[in-house]
Amino acid sequence: MKVPSTELQDRVSNFQNRLQKSGIAGALLVQRADTLYYSGTAQNVHVYIPSAGTPIIMAFRDFLRAQSESPWVVIQLQGMSKIPKYILDTGLPLPEILGLELDVLPVNQFERYRKLFPNVRFVDVSNEIRLQRSVKSKWELARLDESAQLHTFVLEFAKEILHPGMTEAELEGLLVGKARSLGHGGYVRMRGFDAEFHVGAITSGARAAVSSCFDGPVTGQGVSIAHPSGASMAQIKSGEPIVVDMVSVVNGYQIDQTRMLSLGPLSKELIKVYEVARRVEEKIRCALVPGRVAGEVYEEIITWVRENTPYEENFMGYGISRVRFVGHGVGLELDELPTISKGSKVVLESGMVVAIEPKFVFPGIGAVGIEDTVVVVDELGAKYISMSPRELIII
Amino acid sequence: MKVPSTELQDRVSNFQNRLQKSGIAGALLVQRADTLYYSGTAQNVHVYIPSAGTPIIMAFRDFLRAQSESPWVVIQLQGMSKIPKYILDTGLPLPEILGLELDVLPVNQFERYRKLFPNVRFVDVSNEIRLQRSVKSKWELARLDESAQLHTFVLEFAKEILHPGMTEAELEGLLVGKARSLGHGGYVRMRGFDAEFHVGAITSGARAAVSSCFDGPVTGQGVSIAHPSGASMAQIKSGEPIVVDMVSVVNGYQIDQTRMLSLGPLSKELIKVYEVARRVEEKIRCALVPGRVAGEVYEEIITWVRENTPYEENFMGYGISRVRFVGHGVGLELDELPTISKGSKVVLESGMVVAIEPKFVFPGIGAVGIEDTVVVVDELGAKYISMSPRELIII
Repeated sequence: MKVPSTELQDRVSNFQNRLQKSGIAGALLVQRADTLYYSGTAQNVHVYIPSAGTPIIMAFRDFLRAQSESPWVVIQLQGMSKIPKYILDTGLPLPEILGLELDVLPVNQFERYRKLFPNVRFVDVSNEIRLQRSVKSKWELARLDESAQLHTFVLEFAKEILHPGMTEAELEGLLVGKARSLGHGGYVRMRGFDAEFHVGAITSGARAAVSSCFDGPVTGQGVSIAHPSGASMAQIKSGEPIVVDMVSVVNGYQIDQTRMLSLGPLSKELIKVYEVARRVEEKIRCALVPGRVAGEVYEEIITWVRENTPYEENFMGYGISRVRFVGHGVGLELDELPTISKGSKVVLESGMVVAIEPKFVFPGIGAVGIEDTVVVVDELGAKYISMSPRELIII
Repeated sequence: MKVPSTELQDRVSNFQNRLQKSGIAGALLVQRADTLYYSGTAQNVHVYIPSAGTPIIMAFRDFLRAQSESPWVVIQLQGMSKIPKYILDTGLPLPEILGLELDVLPVNQFERYRKLFPNVRFVDVSNEIRLQRSVKSKWELARLDESAQLHTFVLEFAKEILHPGMTEAELEGLLVGKARSLGHGGYVRMRGFDAEFHVGAITSGARAAVSSCFDGPVTGQGVSIAHPSGASMAQIKSGEPIVVDMVSVVNGYQIDQTRMLSLGPLSKELIKVYEVARRVEEKIRCALVPGRVAGEVYEEIITWVRENTPYEENFMGYGISRVRFVGHGVGLELDELPTISKGSKVVLESGMVVAIEPKFVFPGIGAVGIEDTVVVVDELGAKYISMSPRELIII
């Protein structure tokens, strides 16, 4: 499915307004999520967006596919050294101030641009891009709905195949394979340096309480030291909570969702914790309204958990492994703005999409929680994009 | 499986020799493949290696796992601003010249280090790291053997499940799921900026001749514009060549392998092309001997294909999409040194591991080729690490 050209025009105009307000003459973008967002193609391209006028797409490969996918002028990139010439050829002047994605751009690649644009001052435009992309259009919300729908099929499939003796890795492989057969993109895109996440992170029992390099409350033990998060090779046991945290992606748009399964009933205590998690999720969802500051929502939720539950020290991880957020933006990337995190000053807006994930971790026992992707709408609270039933799934 | 401490001592000593030769007082490493290589843990750590003495591992999370996995001193990292203090606390002076991985380090993160080390000159040590890592130890070769063994099970499984009506994405999902159940790490690590690769890239018929953003000869069409390489949602048809290009990874070590399958026999012409591909693979394998320059091997192979086959314009892609390599290093990352590529001046050494992949692309028809991971040994030619049979697999 192509990105409609009206959609791309709106995105570029919005970004150009941001450039103009900051006195930036143009931006040269290279990161895939950003270039896809503004150009409509995920091929290997450089996107030059002047503060006024038409973007130029310089395609390394595949040129013909980029040309068929983007409504903008697509030029075949014959070498990075020619980028200034391509800009001049379109009648545009070279910018005095050039915006780059300095949050992701490697130093050596930056040095090449510095040589190509010797009299230019460089500024970071990544925060403006991330703020813009945090607010989704109707077209993007429709793509996220498709992703949520795919997710429901995968969970139904989980109910069919989960059986005693299965390992976490086996369950993950089958669920991700099912998602793939339904059109899942096959991997997760993240912006953070060196960030890695499995499409499906399946973790059960005590392993779910093991922390890892991944910046999340429940990450799993992994299959080896080299891949130290997500599913392990351990068998799933009866009565243990199974955390199925999965990212679905259709047409590039990712939703993040967690559901709890178990083989046979969970203990009364864990069922009670799950009810608390669902209640906290409702608290978060209702607090996500336009005009509120993300960091204040975070404090409100932390305070509520402290004052109303006995699980404060288990909330969002345990001990030094606790993370300081209860939700994160999601879309073309898994780690988008806004984060509902300690100190965040981002003001919530209608159209922002957030994965909210209250989770409780009990060392030696496991983890219990829920995660849904929601969209900020109005003062009545965010609306669910995820559409899977939220009850515990007991097999 | 832990990395043995003697192995880690050898790696650090080798790197320290390189630092000393370049007059670099120490290196601060942050990229996961590199930090895993020198520290033995894939947790989120900063690794400081002085040109003499013991490395310091500063762990953000998970500290306890990093401590249990690495034989070096592991300190809990309480914030990046404390890094200079941690170095001084061990009795080491701050370096005058500090090595960083400038090929991957984002500009904004580099700027933070510049502020933390105000009187320090920074140099790029990524090429030295990549050269060191290109030569594998016996322990690493044993890990690659495990990865190759996992691959054979996956291909046997492919023979069992491939059937008419199956889509490329369905086949990919089942094969990757099988690999995962056997302990596969679940995703592919690459060093290149924004590089993405599916664990399994399954492409068949005319779609295998479609080029994409991925820098390889056969990349596939993908399931959407947003994920434009790898398997598509198209059904696999009888008599069409099926390219199964997969990366297996066990304990972090990746092998890259491609086999051809088909439902029913292929045309005589395509069978002939496959025989040529196998012959070219032997030519490459035999040319990979210590002391040879990688770029010269590339020219020899290109010349042989031009002079001895009618498929020069189909070799390694078609038209403007042809890639300029016939092999690439592989290990903890998929895009390691050496590349057997145009102009490469890397001198081959015993222990270098290379995925060699002669492939021929015919627009509108498909792609035919083979890929095996081999290790450079002596003047008799490289030895196969991949252990799957190399015949066409006709179902």
